[in-house]
Amino acid sequence: MRVFGVDPGLTRCGFGVVDGGPGRTVRAVAVDVVRTPADADLAVRLLQLSDAVEEWLDRHRPQVVAVERVFSQHNVRTAMGTAQAGGVVALAAARRGLPVVFHTPSEVKAAVTGSGRADKAQVTAMVTKLLGLKTAPRPADAADALALAICHLWRAPMRTRLAEAEARAAELARTHRARLARASARAPGRPAAETGGKTQ
Amino acid sequence: MRVFGVDPGLTRCGFGVVDGGPGRTVRAVAVDVVRTPADADLAVRLLQLSDAVEEWLDRHRPQVVAVERVFSQHNVRTAMGTAQAGGVVALAAARRGLPVVFHTPSEVKAAVTGSGRADKAQVTAMVTKLLGLKTAPRPADAADALALAICHLWRAPMRTRLAEAEARAAELARTHRARLARASARAPGRPAAETGGKTQ
Repeated sequence: MRVFGVDPGLTRCGFGVVDGGPGRTVRAVAVDVVRTPADADLAVRLLQLSDAVEEWLDRHRPQVVAVERVFSQHNVRTAMGTAQAGGVVALAAARRGLPVVFHTPSEVKAAVTGSGRADKAQVTAMVTKLLGLKTAPRPADAADALALAICHLWRAPMRTRLAEAEARAAELARTHRARLARASARAPGRPAAETGGKTQ
Repeated sequence: MRVFGVDPGLTRCGFGVVDGGPGRTVRAVAVDVVRTPADADLAVRLLQLSDAVEEWLDRHRPQVVAVERVFSQHNVRTAMGTAQAGGVVALAAARRGLPVVFHTPSEVKAAVTGSGRADKAQVTAMVTKLLGLKTAPRPADAADALALAICHLWRAPMRTRLAEAEARAAELARTHRARLARASARAPGRPAAETGGKTQ
């Protein structure tokens, strides 16, 4: 599976494409940072970013787009710009029918370093090692984009297994409730409402 | 001038198109609220909103798009969704080379009611009156979108006059500094650095 990881931002937006192989093997396909001028209109900056995303989608043909989910930042204006950049990336992917998955920074850190509280240097070091790169990707936004793609590749099978496990559990619960209902119907002495009320 | 006002949001996004006539006359062209399903993926919601914006740009051919600028909200998740919705609108306009202008809620309220702290009911009542509508636009997001468009129509000439005044003031200051520099050059007894340093 090929994943396009994006660390969203208007001043610097990290792009990283990673291929997942058998087991947990990963291979870097491309990495870069897209910048838009701070003195340009917001709409123009979003357009430049959108054009860059389209170009990468054309060139690298990923099967899924993974975007960092940012809940809050100290600077509200920066947080808004980051959210808008992420929205533009998600929109471009959705236009092509590509799935878009959001991962939080702590999920990404935990996936590549084992700790959700790792710092930027640790993330960059692990990304460099995992992908067998000769030099560390710079700036940190570029390394973060690759980390996001790796996180998605490693979490995706887990998400699938989890969804399957939940579906099986729900099916078992339904079977169990049906048995209880039948048992209660066969034993009229027990108040049916007692189990009936709880199972609804 | 025809303005497309947008009160951005994912759950409800207000759309309003207003034509400005001579003086301060305004005429409502269209108003509606676009909704996207809360249980759909963010990317899908942004795509649905983007499609609706494109359709309105095709149908109404505005010359400018005015979007409400939101700095912060109590709910961070809602604020992010609002920012992303606004970004999608700005992007669609930028793709067509249309200017996008952001106005704050207090600018909009002040423009239509005279007070930057007017409540939603006051804004709706003034929009209804100013546009000569038979019934008040509902919900509030629809009225807000019309208010944004009116705000832009009324503020735009002021912004132009302000920019012209600032340009004239800058030109006068340049002329004044040039005169001072020439006077200082003709009077070698005065230290030239004193004025020279200040004019750079």
